[in-house]
Amino acid sequence: MMGGEKSKAIGIFDSGIGGLTVVREVMKELPNENIIYFGDTARVPYGSKSKDTVTKFSEQIVRFLLSKDVKAIIIACNTVSSNSYDDLRSTFDIHFAEVVTPGAEACISGLKGSRVGVIGTEATIRSGAYERKLRQFMPDITVFSKACPLFVPLAEEGWTNNTVARITAEIYLQELIDKEIEALILGCTHYPLIADCIRGAAGFIRIVNPAEAVAANMKKFLTESNLLNDGQGAESRFFVSDNTYKFNRMCGLMLGNIYEAEKVDIERY
Amino acid sequence: MMGGEKSKAIGIFDSGIGGLTVVREVMKELPNENIIYFGDTARVPYGSKSKDTVTKFSEQIVRFLLSKDVKAIIIACNTVSSNSYDDLRSTFDIHFAEVVTPGAEACISGLKGSRVGVIGTEATIRSGAYERKLRQFMPDITVFSKACPLFVPLAEEGWTNNTVARITAEIYLQELIDKEIEALILGCTHYPLIADCIRGAAGFIRIVNPAEAVAANMKKFLTESNLLNDGQGAESRFFVSDNTYKFNRMCGLMLGNIYEAEKVDIERY
Repeated sequence: MMGGEKSKAIGIFDSGIGGLTVVREVMKELPNENIIYFGDTARVPYGSKSKDTVTKFSEQIVRFLLSKDVKAIIIACNTVSSNSYDDLRSTFDIHFAEVVTPGAEACISGLKGSRVGVIGTEATIRSGAYERKLRQFMPDITVFSKACPLFVPLAEEGWTNNTVARITAEIYLQELIDKEIEALILGCTHYPLIADCIRGAAGFIRIVNPAEAVAANMKKFLTESNLLNDGQGAESRFFVSDNTYKFNRMCGLMLGNIYEAEKVDIERY
Repeated sequence: MMGGEKSKAIGIFDSGIGGLTVVREVMKELPNENIIYFGDTARVPYGSKSKDTVTKFSEQIVRFLLSKDVKAIIIACNTVSSNSYDDLRSTFDIHFAEVVTPGAEACISGLKGSRVGVIGTEATIRSGAYERKLRQFMPDITVFSKACPLFVPLAEEGWTNNTVARITAEIYLQELIDKEIEALILGCTHYPLIADCIRGAAGFIRIVNPAEAVAANMKKFLTESNLLNDGQGAESRFFVSDNTYKFNRMCGLMLGNIYEAEKVDIERY
């Protein structure tokens, strides 16, 4: 493997800004890697859209990332991971990491009983991807799933821990709490932003954030493939499909660092 | 004017399903007219997107509606009306009706004092379109504006009058109530769906729904232009950019009639 290959960036994409919670974990785990991030802020949210539309949008994004010569791609978006991972893998010749498998593994690791919950967007829950993956790892598991469509707009509004967010979390989570689940997967990249609120409603239930697991998985893949960047000082670039001001504001908040995003006409890819 | 011209449809478009509140008023006011509706459900919401993106998406939709040979176009979406009306008018040779002007007129009609409020999406409020229009009609008016980004997802979730919706309305409207406004414009097509909740929080403030005024305006235009359909039995068609099942469900709820939507690849226009 040539040195040039190692210094290539990791591509990370999401339907919008939520994927920055994954970028945060990757930067922690792999501080020497270059990252090319794309957030589809012009067409966000994906969670209420159909599988066909989600796959089509994702293919455009992958073509854009490939044009930037990335060495691997992280599908940060749970909706894309749940609906379009197989299609993307069969269409493109590059290593994809998605969030469902590591999220399911992290959920099962250390589980005492067999009752767990998954929350996510409508499209993620409808896909049943977490449920299938959890059952694959642990056939006698019982999974309770719940779509929570208001969590994303609440996080984007910055209402991450007010009365409305707390009551919303209580309403959404009550039926999962009634099922006496032991662990709860945050099946949407936005949800770590309102984790305090979810934790408050969930009581003693263990909260699983797949973003942490996906970063560890990517490190394992790069190590095994001899693709870890041995250069110093990562240079990351951020791209969005809509104007950049909202992204830049959230970016500072979530990564503790100011990155200037660049705008891309994604429909051309 | 030939008979064929009169029997052409009225085009109506919105970022999603909210525009059906405008369709409902047009069907009431103009029961003999054919309607071609387009809802951009694959790219909804527009309210958090930039002016450039909103204009680009709208131009694609207008080209689609023109391919269906409509005689006039209603921009049901407040975000498009506020951000892209002038651009659309200068680009295309067809009569456009938008919602801001009739909404502002209806607000001012019967006003005793001079203090009014406007609520809408971020993009609508940022544009200042209602404020400019209100001041044009009544120079000494005082306008208080407030973006309410959670109202659309609440309406789409069907939480139109529960505790969360009521507290959200109270939080959003409190600063307008403190300003002692006399009338409040619902500057987003989704908001009539949660009007009970808004009315509850707004107390004695008069609520203005621009959809009613825009239907009356279209009737006036068609009458004056000798374009009223003199045929009987309107046949309306509904198009969306994402899958049709969600639209069909909401359509029954909002129009009291089942219409089967057809899917369009809007990015090709």
